[in-house]
Amino acid sequence: MAKNGAHQGGTTDRVGARRTPAGAAVLREDKTAAIRAAVFEELATVGFARMSIEGIARRAGVGKTAVYRRWRSKLHLVLDVVSAVAVAGLPSPDTGSLRGDVRLLLEVAARALRHPMASQIIPDLLAEAARSPELAEALRTALHDSQQSMAAAMVERAVERGEIPAGVDGKLALDLLTGPLYWRLVVVRDDLPAGYLDALAQSVAAALGAE
Amino acid sequence: MAKNGAHQGGTTDRVGARRTPAGAAVLREDKTAAIRAAVFEELATVGFARMSIEGIARRAGVGKTAVYRRWRSKLHLVLDVVSAVAVAGLPSPDTGSLRGDVRLLLEVAARALRHPMASQIIPDLLAEAARSPELAEALRTALHDSQQSMAAAMVERAVERGEIPAGVDGKLALDLLTGPLYWRLVVVRDDLPAGYLDALAQSVAAALGAE
Repeated sequence: MAKNGAHQGGTTDRVGARRTPAGAAVLREDKTAAIRAAVFEELATVGFARMSIEGIARRAGVGKTAVYRRWRSKLHLVLDVVSAVAVAGLPSPDTGSLRGDVRLLLEVAARALRHPMASQIIPDLLAEAARSPELAEALRTALHDSQQSMAAAMVERAVERGEIPAGVDGKLALDLLTGPLYWRLVVVRDDLPAGYLDALAQSVAAALGAE
Repeated sequence: MAKNGAHQGGTTDRVGARRTPAGAAVLREDKTAAIRAAVFEELATVGFARMSIEGIARRAGVGKTAVYRRWRSKLHLVLDVVSAVAVAGLPSPDTGSLRGDVRLLLEVAARALRHPMASQIIPDLLAEAARSPELAEALRTALHDSQQSMAAAMVERAVERGEIPAGVDGKLALDLLTGPLYWRLVVVRDDLPAGYLDALAQSVAAALGAE
């Protein structure tokens, strides 16, 4: 029943909310951590659709009930893991120039997107998000919203320094910062040739209006 | 056995190659077309991992053997469908200016990426590609290689017209053309606000060196 629980009930719950145990039993934190780690490994290995609570429990070395005591379905478990990543958002860089800020951001983004989390798990969850509005919303928050204000602040500082004219759309800026790298590393699955990030940083700064 | 046939045998076959029937039996083309259409519908509805030959045959109104007579596994069936899309590549636009060419390409790309094929099926296949080198290669051809020469030709014409300096990397150009739209429409699943494509076309032309 819980195996494909994506659409059953609980849509008004807070995304990723932890289940409150029926009794006042204390949940052992080491088991919780082991289950979370097992979710990442199972996602990368078999993918969301084929992943089961049984498989997660086996990999974590716990019983199935230990999982169900914490999360009501595999969707809720994954939402929790994804939301945790979103909280660990990027700090806004402040190198003193737009091109420097862009270059630093691209470096951090490239490292994140080469991680198995991005190259295997995100495409998998995006595929599932097409069928689950709850998951789509959690992913939007994790991948986009937390970076939106950071990109807007970076653009604003560049305008204040007189590097670019005012009026650049913050969303467009984020699309230009994130899209090309995501496309190359996650979709095309190609390497970054030497000098690529420098050339991309210059191009993106120019796209945002820098001379 | 064929259900998860992604990794079994046949890796030296031409990607998407149709199976030759054991006898010299003629394969009815209307059945082939019905099966192909059913694959798209099943991919969009249940996704690659949960999709089965049984489900495809049922939707197409044919027997399972009609499918196996044509393709040896669901992976081969999907490879064939994806390769067919790749052949229908974009013609290179030639509007007389880089910004005009970019604007036209973004328009066509935006329409393609809003199609269910892109928003549901591509993320699903990309997720599977992380576990299947054959599928990864077919997707790279369908999504990237067929557009690579088109982007390079567009950049070359802009250099000949004196709009941009020589030396722009063709791959970087394609990343800038495709990435931001793909990110917005397929990953973030956001709408395109009014004027977005105009602003993006101007930004991408500037990124490529236009003034």
